[in-house]
Amino acid sequence: MKNRKLRMGMVGGGKDAFIGAVHRMAANLDGQIEIVCGAFSSNHEKCIETGKSIFIDENRCYPTFAEMMKQEAKLPTHIRMDFVAVVTPNHLHYLPAKLALEHGFPVIIDKPISYTTEETLQLKEIVEKTQLPLAVTFTYSGYPMVKQARTLVKQKDIGDITKIVVSFPQDWLTEKIEDTNQKQAAWRTDPLRSGKSGTYGDIGTHAAHLAEYISGLKITKVLSQLNKVVDGRPLDDDANVFLEFENGAKGILVASQICAGEENGFKINVFGNKGSVQWSQEDNNSLYVKWLNKPLQKYRSGTNNNYLSKEALAHLRIPSGHPEGYLEAFANIYRNFAEGIRAHKAKKPQNPILDYPSIDDGLHSMSLIDAVVSSTEKGNKWVTVAY
Amino acid sequence: MKNRKLRMGMVGGGKDAFIGAVHRMAANLDGQIEIVCGAFSSNHEKCIETGKSIFIDENRCYPTFAEMMKQEAKLPTHIRMDFVAVVTPNHLHYLPAKLALEHGFPVIIDKPISYTTEETLQLKEIVEKTQLPLAVTFTYSGYPMVKQARTLVKQKDIGDITKIVVSFPQDWLTEKIEDTNQKQAAWRTDPLRSGKSGTYGDIGTHAAHLAEYISGLKITKVLSQLNKVVDGRPLDDDANVFLEFENGAKGILVASQICAGEENGFKINVFGNKGSVQWSQEDNNSLYVKWLNKPLQKYRSGTNNNYLSKEALAHLRIPSGHPEGYLEAFANIYRNFAEGIRAHKAKKPQNPILDYPSIDDGLHSMSLIDAVVSSTEKGNKWVTVAY
Amino acid sequence: MKNRKLRMGMVGGGKDAFIGAVHRMAANLDGQIEIVCGAFSSNHEKCIETGKSIFIDENRCYPTFAEMMKQEAKLPTHIRMDFVAVVTPNHLHYLPAKLALEHGFPVIIDKPISYTTEETLQLKEIVEKTQLPLAVTFTYSGYPMVKQARTLVKQKDIGDITKIVVSFPQDWLTEKIEDTNQKQAAWRTDPLRSGKSGTYGDIGTHAAHLAEYISGLKITKVLSQLNKVVDGRPLDDDANVFLEFENGAKGILVASQICAGEENGFKINVFGNKGSVQWSQEDNNSLYVKWLNKPLQKYRSGTNNNYLSKEALAHLRIPSGHPEGYLEAFANIYRNFAEGIRAHKAKKPQNPILDYPSIDDGLHSMSLIDAVVSSTEKGNKWVTVAY
Amino acid sequence: MKNRKLRMGMVGGGKDAFIGAVHRMAANLDGQIEIVCGAFSSNHEKCIETGKSIFIDENRCYPTFAEMMKQEAKLPTHIRMDFVAVVTPNHLHYLPAKLALEHGFPVIIDKPISYTTEETLQLKEIVEKTQLPLAVTFTYSGYPMVKQARTLVKQKDIGDITKIVVSFPQDWLTEKIEDTNQKQAAWRTDPLRSGKSGTYGDIGTHAAHLAEYISGLKITKVLSQLNKVVDGRPLDDDANVFLEFENGAKGILVASQICAGEENGFKINVFGNKGSVQWSQEDNNSLYVKWLNKPLQKYRSGTNNNYLSKEALAHLRIPSGHPEGYLEAFANIYRNFAEGIRAHKAKKPQNPILDYPSIDDGLHSMSLIDAVVSSTEKGNKWVTVAY
Repeated sequence: MKNRKLRMGMVGGGKDAFIGAVHRMAANLDGQIEIVCGAFSSNHEKCIETGKSIFIDENRCYPTFAEMMKQEAKLPTHIRMDFVAVVTPNHLHYLPAKLALEHGFPVIIDKPISYTTEETLQLKEIVEKTQLPLAVTFTYSGYPMVKQARTLVKQKDIGDITKIVVSFPQDWLTEKIEDTNQKQAAWRTDPLRSGKSGTYGDIGTHAAHLAEYISGLKITKVLSQLNKVVDGRPLDDDANVFLEFENGAKGILVASQICAGEENGFKINVFGNKGSVQWSQEDNNSLYVKWLNKPLQKYRSGTNNNYLSKEALAHLRIPSGHPEGYLEAFANIYRNFAEGIRAHKAKKPQNPILDYPSIDDGLHSMSLIDAVVSSTEKGNKWVTVAY
Repeated sequence: MKNRKLRMGMVGGGKDAFIGAVHRMAANLDGQIEIVCGAFSSNHEKCIETGKSIFIDENRCYPTFAEMMKQEAKLPTHIRMDFVAVVTPNHLHYLPAKLALEHGFPVIIDKPISYTTEETLQLKEIVEKTQLPLAVTFTYSGYPMVKQARTLVKQKDIGDITKIVVSFPQDWLTEKIEDTNQKQAAWRTDPLRSGKSGTYGDIGTHAAHLAEYISGLKITKVLSQLNKVVDGRPLDDDANVFLEFENGAKGILVASQICAGEENGFKINVFGNKGSVQWSQEDNNSLYVKWLNKPLQKYRSGTNNNYLSKEALAHLRIPSGHPEGYLEAFANIYRNFAEGIRAHKAKKPQNPILDYPSIDDGLHSMSLIDAVVSSTEKGNKWVTVAY
Repeated sequence: MKNRKLRMGMVGGGKDAFIGAVHRMAANLDGQIEIVCGAFSSNHEKCIETGKSIFIDENRCYPTFAEMMKQEAKLPTHIRMDFVAVVTPNHLHYLPAKLALEHGFPVIIDKPISYTTEETLQLKEIVEKTQLPLAVTFTYSGYPMVKQARTLVKQKDIGDITKIVVSFPQDWLTEKIEDTNQKQAAWRTDPLRSGKSGTYGDIGTHAAHLAEYISGLKITKVLSQLNKVVDGRPLDDDANVFLEFENGAKGILVASQICAGEENGFKINVFGNKGSVQWSQEDNNSLYVKWLNKPLQKYRSGTNNNYLSKEALAHLRIPSGHPEGYLEAFANIYRNFAEGIRAHKAKKPQNPILDYPSIDDGLHSMSLIDAVVSSTEKGNKWVTVAY
Repeated sequence: MKNRKLRMGMVGGGKDAFIGAVHRMAANLDGQIEIVCGAFSSNHEKCIETGKSIFIDENRCYPTFAEMMKQEAKLPTHIRMDFVAVVTPNHLHYLPAKLALEHGFPVIIDKPISYTTEETLQLKEIVEKTQLPLAVTFTYSGYPMVKQARTLVKQKDIGDITKIVVSFPQDWLTEKIEDTNQKQAAWRTDPLRSGKSGTYGDIGTHAAHLAEYISGLKITKVLSQLNKVVDGRPLDDDANVFLEFENGAKGILVASQICAGEENGFKINVFGNKGSVQWSQEDNNSLYVKWLNKPLQKYRSGTNNNYLSKEALAHLRIPSGHPEGYLEAFANIYRNFAEGIRAHKAKKPQNPILDYPSIDDGLHSMSLIDAVVSSTEKGNKWVTVAY
């Protein structure tokens, strides 16, 4: 492949969407990717307006994602997009992803990967058939200090895992803002667009993925209590879940969007029988490593901190003391995915250090949503995770 | 009553005991109480040794608590102890407390109040008959910033309570130290001395009490998962509990003593529909008040911080920026109990601001232990709290 | 001007340089700028190698910056670079900047603006003559919470400024790494490349700029103690400075690069007679606003925090709880400078909210270096700042 | 000496005084000391009232401290006070201390030890003549984590000391409250009662003492800028000082009482060429040990933290995670002084681990006040410390 930026097309991400702009900044940051086309909105005028605001040719602002796949596939190789980013609401993940793959385009999808487990199983089939790269943006696994935590656990530095506590409180659904003009709240609380779970599906999935990513252990069973705290909301806005991991360790997951005063207080503690690791998103450049009978250590991000693992260092850009944040973590997923595409094009194996969440992560996550919802429906009973 | 210090007798608290020394320092701090006698140990020599180390006359170092009650009751009023502190392991709370009350002595007891709910019901009867003051040292409710939190909630500043998250991780039972010479671990993990729960009974009770104290709401139902993480331990060393409060609000309680690297990380968040309060024991001089759409506020302890409530100010000793801690909180319980005894002697009502946990708090707490243990035994089912 | 990205040429920023890559990421982030050419290194091979790594045509990887200015000026408008970024060591700021301006290119320069005050005065003349935009990357003034602090001060919320304390400890020059192969240390400690001050010139200038930016007050006099803590170092690696501000307020500035264990602990407190603001780079998404007799408030970054000032909001990209960091702050300078260039091309005034440090800031900063160095040379005497 | 509590007499500490009550709680905490008499106020009625409130016999509430010394000296040994605590304003330290010593009573004095250096030199003579124990309550040196820091420095763990930064901001004199009824402010800002310095004398002395205590290095020279920020105040309310230590290391001391919003933000960083220690009073149970190229460590107080030095452990009362605070640190000074008196009575050497600030610390501190004041008077010149 020629030495050039990868060209990205985007599905969704119209002007008011929060996550579309985030995906674009993440794609921009490292200068590895340029955005060349999009089906940013089902409203074609708005699509064009969005396209213009980011300097995209009007004739590559497509009225539908189907059209985008079709037209781009016809363009000559030196112009055609290289991959597709899907950043629509959940019910509109599957179809564009499917089409992209079928037209030969790798695809990166916002989490959760899809609307249902069934769709996801089908997507997995297509991925297996096409052998194309697919990524799901479980963003938090892109943080360097999360990588460091994962390495420490893998090395058994903290011993055998005994307990995991993960919580993700937010407050943005404390009031019934879906009744106002808040677009994101509207679809997040709507079962027709979000799927069978609200808050658990939105952020509980992040929490579960991170717990598994750091611990290297899959969740096998759940007992949940999904609550609808705000009157008249059809989906859960608050979730408490007991977890059981494959090694028998127990866990607790608390995800909520009605915790007034909390921003995005995603925090995890993974306990082993020798020590523990603690990471929190709002203090993302630090990793607290706590020991039995020894002083706590604070690992810090920074390209110059050569005590860090190669996994952490590979996802850092600047020296210690210069905070990196959410966009950088997101950009790590994009950068790694770009590397994956380059490797794929070159028919080389992907560098395992430059990992990103895969179709299997996506499927497992959907399956967890099923189990969590089912546990509450059955009256807070233990339910086994299918995939 | 003459203007003088109150005289305290102590049951338990021999030289190696952690909590006995804590009770003594708490009693000393404000100069309201002097320790005059004790049955510090069932080993009389050790009892005398302990007594000497704190300058107590050998003839008031009693071989048994029964003897102490009997002999002290016979002493003239100007010498006799005024009240008894019971700081023995749980299975030895009821009997000395009962005897103390029956001999006319108010009693302050380490938490949980007793070994079983049945004993506690009997104790309640005696209290009601004797009308003597009785306190249980749910220490954490003695912290000034906890009082402040309670006031803010009561005033509805943060709106209606929607969720409570309370966690109390420790690490001191991560290893099986009860097999070594660690006395405290030995009795805490022994059902014959601790009662039917280990960790929940020890610190889960603190967590539940604090959640109720701050929120002003009782827990009515629980669904628990008590775990025995360390092999061969007969009692739980890890507890996860779903809570339901009397107003329907949901809660989560996590208490554990196998969280390697955690010291005494007791932390609580009480969420309302307008804001929330957060308090953590390791940062006890701060109260974080978080708001929807407004900057977080940090309330700070300090006698000069006149924005604090009268309840908080009444439990502070020094100006802001001079940290108070655990012993001061403990001393608040003692000071308030001393005030209670003085009021009782003067046949006056106790100042309601100078509150302390009562027999009813103790009973409810025992009943919660029953419910939590029962829920796990039934396979993680919801169980209603009896008292 | 056509609706397109601005095209940037870069002087300096070869492969091992720290700050070159930072400038590029900052320019990339918002998708407003693309890098099209460079004179990345005086070594032409290395220049080409750097260019290739960021997908730049080899024929626009110029052997010298003079060549770059000359050749680019000849290119047709739809290809030619729009502006130049100068990211070389200090002694190589003036000449490329001068040439850029003389060839009609706006220029953005890493701080401090130049090698000497004399050069800077000449640069100012050229700027005034050409009327072209020029920016200096005092990065820290690009942080949103710094903008918020500035607004609060301007609004007199904290009253009249009485004292400013600013400190900037780092540890990367604790050992004599300039004797190893560390390129950056080599030039930073070399008077021929850095200028007359080492640490003060490098980071003291940031600290002074931030103090003035937040307070809105210029430093008029200084009394300094520049130290050479590591033996054999020709320039200061540690600086303590008393400051006097134009309103008579006193200040302290501490900048050091020999503070073992410190990363980039840049922190500032601006005190007024009603309250104070505190901001720290390592916790950049928070602004602590402290009050006499009222609880401290913590302002937080986040596009949704509508209690923030328009100045802060205009420099935020994502909702609260998603940390932004150093690259985002840097990108704010680039984004604002790009807006400045667009305004200039359109002959419209720049939006005053989208500010960036100017030639005057650069000149004042050089003049402060002179005064600080002179004060120490005179035996720690007060020296007046010339410009 | 008989196995009993030591009996303390107090000079000063009438009902409204802040520091008198603090001394009493500190003396009470460990049950080693009982307060038996006092000359609490020059107003005899108030003296008696204070005495009663702490259960002291009216006939041992003396009208003057001279009377107290005289009368107590006449009492039989088994009743007579054992030592005197002097907690009056500075101008009334010398005379009661002198009298106490001359009547054979050891003495503990609030800092700074006296009103002038001259008085202090005389006091030193008396101490040397009488050979009686004398302590000065530089409280902050009583904190366990400060002891830990001192040990780490002594062991050269952080290498050779290169720089010390210490700051002590408060806000309680931001407004001119000495014009209201605030007693403490009235004498602190009054040269007739405080001495030649206000804020430096009050808290700068604490800062200097702590810097020396942790580093083990004496300050030999100072260059100061004492400011009177609030109009009409006769003494400094704000102090900036350059320090030079005996090994040539440089330092900065900032003490201020006009820093609106600051409580008691006493913080110190001691830098060596291998690492550094950081301690802050408002987070007193932690010691941050920072390293070149290694993760920061957080040492924590706790009797069970057996990685702590014997010096730290000897000054702790409770296990980790249970915060100790200011009163406990203060109580450490009292406990150590009590041990000193017991050792003196037994003609045994004091346990060197149970140290307390001495007459020499007091004298050096007074001499530092002289030098700091003189430096400002001379126009911010370097001044050598006499003693």
